[in-house]
Amino acid sequence: MATVLDHDTDLNRRMEELGRRARAAARRLALAPRAQKDRALRAAAGAIRARADAIVAANAGDLADAQRKGLAGALLDRLRLDPARVEAMARGLDDIAELDDPVGRVLAAWKRPNGLTIERVAVPLGVVGVIYESRPNVTADAGGLCLKAGNAAILRGGSESFHSAQAIAAALAEGLAAAGLPGDAIQLVPTTDRAAVGAMLAMDEFIDVVVPRGGRSLVERVKTEARMPVFAHLDGVCHVYLHEGAEPAMAEAIAVNAKMRRTGICGAAETLLVDRAAAQTLLPRVLTALEKAGCALRGCEATRAIHPSAAPASEEDWSAEYLDAILAVKVVDGLDAAIAHVDAYGSHHTDAIVTGDDAAAERFLAEIDSAIVLHNASTQFADGGEFGMGAEIGIATGRMHARGPVGVEQLTSFNYRVRGTGQTRPA
Amino acid sequence: MATVLDHDTDLNRRMEELGRRARAAARRLALAPRAQKDRALRAAAGAIRARADAIVAANAGDLADAQRKGLAGALLDRLRLDPARVEAMARGLDDIAELDDPVGRVLAAWKRPNGLTIERVAVPLGVVGVIYESRPNVTADAGGLCLKAGNAAILRGGSESFHSAQAIAAALAEGLAAAGLPGDAIQLVPTTDRAAVGAMLAMDEFIDVVVPRGGRSLVERVKTEARMPVFAHLDGVCHVYLHEGAEPAMAEAIAVNAKMRRTGICGAAETLLVDRAAAQTLLPRVLTALEKAGCALRGCEATRAIHPSAAPASEEDWSAEYLDAILAVKVVDGLDAAIAHVDAYGSHHTDAIVTGDDAAAERFLAEIDSAIVLHNASTQFADGGEFGMGAEIGIATGRMHARGPVGVEQLTSFNYRVRGTGQTRPA
Repeated sequence: MATVLDHDTDLNRRMEELGRRARAAARRLALAPRAQKDRALRAAAGAIRARADAIVAANAGDLADAQRKGLAGALLDRLRLDPARVEAMARGLDDIAELDDPVGRVLAAWKRPNGLTIERVAVPLGVVGVIYESRPNVTADAGGLCLKAGNAAILRGGSESFHSAQAIAAALAEGLAAAGLPGDAIQLVPTTDRAAVGAMLAMDEFIDVVVPRGGRSLVERVKTEARMPVFAHLDGVCHVYLHEGAEPAMAEAIAVNAKMRRTGICGAAETLLVDRAAAQTLLPRVLTALEKAGCALRGCEATRAIHPSAAPASEEDWSAEYLDAILAVKVVDGLDAAIAHVDAYGSHHTDAIVTGDDAAAERFLAEIDSAIVLHNASTQFADGGEFGMGAEIGIATGRMHARGPVGVEQLTSFNYRVRGTGQTRPA
Repeated sequence: MATVLDHDTDLNRRMEELGRRARAAARRLALAPRAQKDRALRAAAGAIRARADAIVAANAGDLADAQRKGLAGALLDRLRLDPARVEAMARGLDDIAELDDPVGRVLAAWKRPNGLTIERVAVPLGVVGVIYESRPNVTADAGGLCLKAGNAAILRGGSESFHSAQAIAAALAEGLAAAGLPGDAIQLVPTTDRAAVGAMLAMDEFIDVVVPRGGRSLVERVKTEARMPVFAHLDGVCHVYLHEGAEPAMAEAIAVNAKMRRTGICGAAETLLVDRAAAQTLLPRVLTALEKAGCALRGCEATRAIHPSAAPASEEDWSAEYLDAILAVKVVDGLDAAIAHVDAYGSHHTDAIVTGDDAAAERFLAEIDSAIVLHNASTQFADGGEFGMGAEIGIATGRMHARGPVGVEQLTSFNYRVRGTGQTRPA
């Protein structure tokens, strides 16, 4: 018992020290000019390239450990770094350097009748905590995004990718040093101790926002325990709704792309809704194309009456996030029923309508309460890069501060700068 | 024991029902056009005027109870409603009706190379919880601001103002009904049971953000217990910094106004910093004027050497929020020392520099990490109305979502609306 307490006290003390150093680094980063931050990003990219062999070797160690522990193939693939993936990480940092500086943007400016001028100016958030699982590249991506936005980052990677993350973090540190920025600007939690996550989530004095990147259990834990705000999404139960005004070829192309381009991303469609009035026309074509692409179907009774090869859907299917080549299919009675279904079963992430009827589309866009709503486009566009925002640290489904893709702009806050000529406030 | 449990279960069940109804109302409010919301606001203002006698009578009952309980004079004054204050509440609602609709604003719009157009559009936050103390007018102000921003409100007033708040809420309900909006859009927690606050703070499923309006102990409790985001400020330890380049008459006018115009508001100055190089010139004049205005001074040694009538300041004075006619005064060694002092002792609320040196001012504005920073203007301008934002529900010192005055725009979130012509995402 005494040992456990000593251990916890020691861990908390070390984590707090990490937080204190991050806070100090954040103060310096907040004032760093764009050129200095970009120099650090490009130097870090160069260091990743120069250390590619060491990074791949560290990763080989992690992979061997993971195989010994019997990790599944998909997890191993996420964990694996090869020269191409290392180069992609480096290029990612170079790309972040190319982005406009999100800090110092004048978001609004106005003048008051008393002569005061007021500006709302973007400033960094402060210290960002990122808690992720097996993908080691998050170390570079998240570290780089935080740096560009003038934030200090505290990164906590999965224990499986511990050595890979350390090798990447060393390259980032080299970049920071080359630009004369504090090494504490990007810190990796130097332990695989699971209690470190709990310690991070309690450090609201030192961490301004925490971003979980990983599976449902990680995100749920972070949302429950974090004493600071969280940018997270739990589920991406995304819908494609084929309105009766949908053009059949477009309906097919969007449904197949939204479901099958990649099935494991949060913007992948999980449920297809089809208007009853168009079900006979649309469903045979669309569902056959989906099956040809390798998709398993789970349909409501009306769907199965038209397309008998679909398995019967159960109530759970309407809220399932398969992240797999499976699609729930439901026939609905028009736009209102489609909106009600998305409201009842969706996760407020990304939903699309396919229709040639602009009035119906505008109602869908206005009434669906999701971070991203699309008309005549695939849900797989739910991505910061596709939005032109550059890299993203994740997609947020909360309604506070950041919603949708979280890129460098979303990693900033703002303050008000007021310029006067001696104004005092009248009684 | 069983009774307590039954009571808690019953209270939680009732609070949850309140939340469920708020959520349903929020869905309808989110789609209400501006004209309908403004009709409700104006009808509510009319109902407040029509019911003025009943509101004042209900308030008289609250006042009598409070006097029996021995409430202090300042609290009694906050609680008191007279015909003028009732009229001010009604006018406040009329003023909110005049504000532009914050919902539906296109915050950004751009086109992607693939032809997709993307809009970021303001939408309501959802359900706002407001927990306040003795001022009954918060019922109308907060309810009206939430309504204008398309949010449902759950209001929990102090037990002292319970009957006043009920009388005001009845007028708001009349306004909602007159405009055909759901009465559940503005709900008053119908019990003075203190456990209801705890129940509210746990209802993250039904309340999207909570705003505490009151003293430090309330705000601390809300920040600690709330499972949802909080818009709050704990302290307003605001500074006026007289730089060596300050024009003496302006320094005097701003210092006196910042401290003494109203001492009980969060934007009132609590510490005066003066450059050593200008202390001999500025301090006698400024401090004499402050004393003439009725301000007690607590100075550092250097201050007292110049102005001996100041009492000696202790370490606690540098972080004190007096909310009274008391000012801490410190001589500092130039801009860097002033910035370091504000960073170490301030509360990131509102800070001002007085100087004719624009370069020094720009450094202060850029480096002070407060919600509001001012150059040559009084800190008492820290107010949504003075910013031209209309009424405010409070001033937030957090860095997430809302910072500074929280007006109707800050009570909105946003989503992305993407319009395509059949785009699918390439592999």
